[in-house]
Amino acid sequence: MRPFALRSAIQNVRDSEPLIHCITNYVTVNDCANALLACGASPIMTDEPKDVEDIASICSGLVINIGTLNERSIEAMRLAGARFAQLGRPIVLDPVGAGASRLRTETACTLLDTLPVSVIRGNMSEIKALVGASAATRGVDVNPDDVTTEENLAQNAEFARSLAAKTGAVVVITGAIDIVADSATAYAVRNGSPLMGKMTGAGCVLTCLVAAFVAANPDAPLEAALAAVVCEGLAGQIAANRMSDSDGNASFRTYLIDAIFRLDGDALEAGALVSRVD
Amino acid sequence: MRPFALRSAIQNVRDSEPLIHCITNYVTVNDCANALLACGASPIMTDEPKDVEDIASICSGLVINIGTLNERSIEAMRLAGARFAQLGRPIVLDPVGAGASRLRTETACTLLDTLPVSVIRGNMSEIKALVGASAATRGVDVNPDDVTTEENLAQNAEFARSLAAKTGAVVVITGAIDIVADSATAYAVRNGSPLMGKMTGAGCVLTCLVAAFVAANPDAPLEAALAAVVCEGLAGQIAANRMSDSDGNASFRTYLIDAIFRLDGDALEAGALVSRVD
Amino acid sequence: MRPFALRSAIQNVRDSEPLIHCITNYVTVNDCANALLACGASPIMTDEPKDVEDIASICSGLVINIGTLNERSIEAMRLAGARFAQLGRPIVLDPVGAGASRLRTETACTLLDTLPVSVIRGNMSEIKALVGASAATRGVDVNPDDVTTEENLAQNAEFARSLAAKTGAVVVITGAIDIVADSATAYAVRNGSPLMGKMTGAGCVLTCLVAAFVAANPDAPLEAALAAVVCEGLAGQIAANRMSDSDGNASFRTYLIDAIFRLDGDALEAGALVSRVD
Repeated sequence: MRPFALRSAIQNVRDSEPLIHCITNYVTVNDCANALLACGASPIMTDEPKDVEDIASICSGLVINIGTLNERSIEAMRLAGARFAQLGRPIVLDPVGAGASRLRTETACTLLDTLPVSVIRGNMSEIKALVGASAATRGVDVNPDDVTTEENLAQNAEFARSLAAKTGAVVVITGAIDIVADSATAYAVRNGSPLMGKMTGAGCVLTCLVAAFVAANPDAPLEAALAAVVCEGLAGQIAANRMSDSDGNASFRTYLIDAIFRLDGDALEAGALVSRVD
Repeated sequence: MRPFALRSAIQNVRDSEPLIHCITNYVTVNDCANALLACGASPIMTDEPKDVEDIASICSGLVINIGTLNERSIEAMRLAGARFAQLGRPIVLDPVGAGASRLRTETACTLLDTLPVSVIRGNMSEIKALVGASAATRGVDVNPDDVTTEENLAQNAEFARSLAAKTGAVVVITGAIDIVADSATAYAVRNGSPLMGKMTGAGCVLTCLVAAFVAANPDAPLEAALAAVVCEGLAGQIAANRMSDSDGNASFRTYLIDAIFRLDGDALEAGALVSRVD
Repeated sequence: MRPFALRSAIQNVRDSEPLIHCITNYVTVNDCANALLACGASPIMTDEPKDVEDIASICSGLVINIGTLNERSIEAMRLAGARFAQLGRPIVLDPVGAGASRLRTETACTLLDTLPVSVIRGNMSEIKALVGASAATRGVDVNPDDVTTEENLAQNAEFARSLAAKTGAVVVITGAIDIVADSATAYAVRNGSPLMGKMTGAGCVLTCLVAAFVAANPDAPLEAALAAVVCEGLAGQIAANRMSDSDGNASFRTYLIDAIFRLDGDALEAGALVSRVD
């Protein structure tokens, strides 16, 4: 790990204010927009095929999140992705619920096969579904059999590296222990809070942060994705520490975005719990 | 009323973590998702006809909320509902704005006629629209002429019981006094806060809680729905008590979901204001 | 300026509780609904062509916000707008992202050409795009070249007045200094907080407030729009003053809506920073 990269990674987002085109679900879209603003980026959402190519042309990063996909938005994903491919700008894919329905699995796999995806971000069940290796995904939640633990970490890191090698994408598998890998290197991140699983959208928000960080650090997608994972994990810890006896998951969600808004490079480096997994 | 049922009703949600498929409006969908997580359930949203049958197959409860219905989502409601009917799992219908437009009234009536709906949840104007008895619904708000008061409570409870007899569904009519009825028994619930009418989505959230409680207590839909109504009403009271001089309806909404997150069976039983209406 | 109008403008909203039909984006729709409730109005959202004419018929104001437009919602905008035109009720247009894509620019221009729009609300880049005078809009954000400053205020006010003359609409151009103009008179409003640019939806929320205020004050659209601009700006200041060291843009968003909920006519008049621009 190169710790200096964390500091510059977030600073580059705040300096360049990348415009991020999100084709994402309508459940967590507001949190995605506010989280992008919190980290220093700027969001724009559109999923109309007749609109996406123009918008894609002015953006630095693309989020494709299939959480509430429909026929129109799938076409928009295809068109926006093709424009990003043409322009050589980063595409981040969040295969929400892959493994839970045929449409989700097929859509995610087709996008991954046909677009030069820079980063894939999902839970282990969703990621496994992309290679036909999944136990059944439990809706949008990870299947308990797929959870990354200290025991299976080395094996899961190897799985992430090999998927990265196969797809050319950085692979981010989130859970109690997060894995961030390219074909050569895998990191484990132990930041975060169990409360992130009790709010909707922690994963969707992370996918957006990854897009912002990769767009602002185009030459270092692995470190950029790693910085985004640390950023959200640390924000989750800060949010958890802020909880009063009356607070629940709704306040936690507010605190999480607040913490992203306030995080700086110093805090990121001081709090990062990152280790390399060989 | 059997008070012990309240405690076990919420405990069963937390123990079984039912996955709830929501076809719902895009206005309050985020609150619906966080409220489901707060009560111990897990949400998944999808309204694409090609996706809903697979998702329905893995879920324990279905919410059909017509708040921002469109031609695609109506088809999705039909398909998901048919799958739930086939599997014998509970469907909860929220006829948002029935009576305010022909499309809403007809869609709600058709769904009610063709699906084995377990629970109907609406305000009195919306519920009356289902039987062609409504004064004009005022958008998504109750018509003042339809409000349940101490004076018309017995009459409205009888209306709820007879609608339950006609449809086979538990009927939940919310307002300052809530009514929860099957064909034999009607309860009045006097929990809640007037602030619930000043935030968007208190009704939508309740519909989701009802689905979670009924999914986790499949043999007692009346008590499960009653427990959900008490749960949200009590959470509304807790949220109202938490309001500072600077707080408004946005903080109230956060506090409401927080309170659901923190409620347990003891608090539910201690705070329930439930009486039988003969 | 007639200061008395501010007090009565907000009081009229609270007294008449106008029902506002919003065809708006799914990113900020929940904030729009809660902000409408906060100011005393009542929201209803629908963008299904088969639903909008019935809903439009029972509403006092219409918001058309093109933030996540699609082919279906564009048709809904057309139909709902035509019904409002027929009924002589106010239409407020928010051309989100006009100038950033051809579809957005053309849709906004067509709506403006074919409907009797009462108020146009946008940032300067979006408003310039409506007359083909824009530098490129930066997504949904203003192009830095278009920002209103003390230096170009008189010139921008003249631009606003001439657009008002051309379209017959009150023109609201928001930024660090807001401009509210009809063909004869332009006001500058210096309320607000820079934090409003760090949350998503401050503009969308304002557009909804404008619709509520104009619906409740149909004979004075200029003063009504002005009161709405002051209302949100003042709420932004109150929200900014409430920020703790842990708070970020997510808490700010909650505080903004809370402050709208608590604002009354006295506070509005005491805090208004309005001046006429000749």
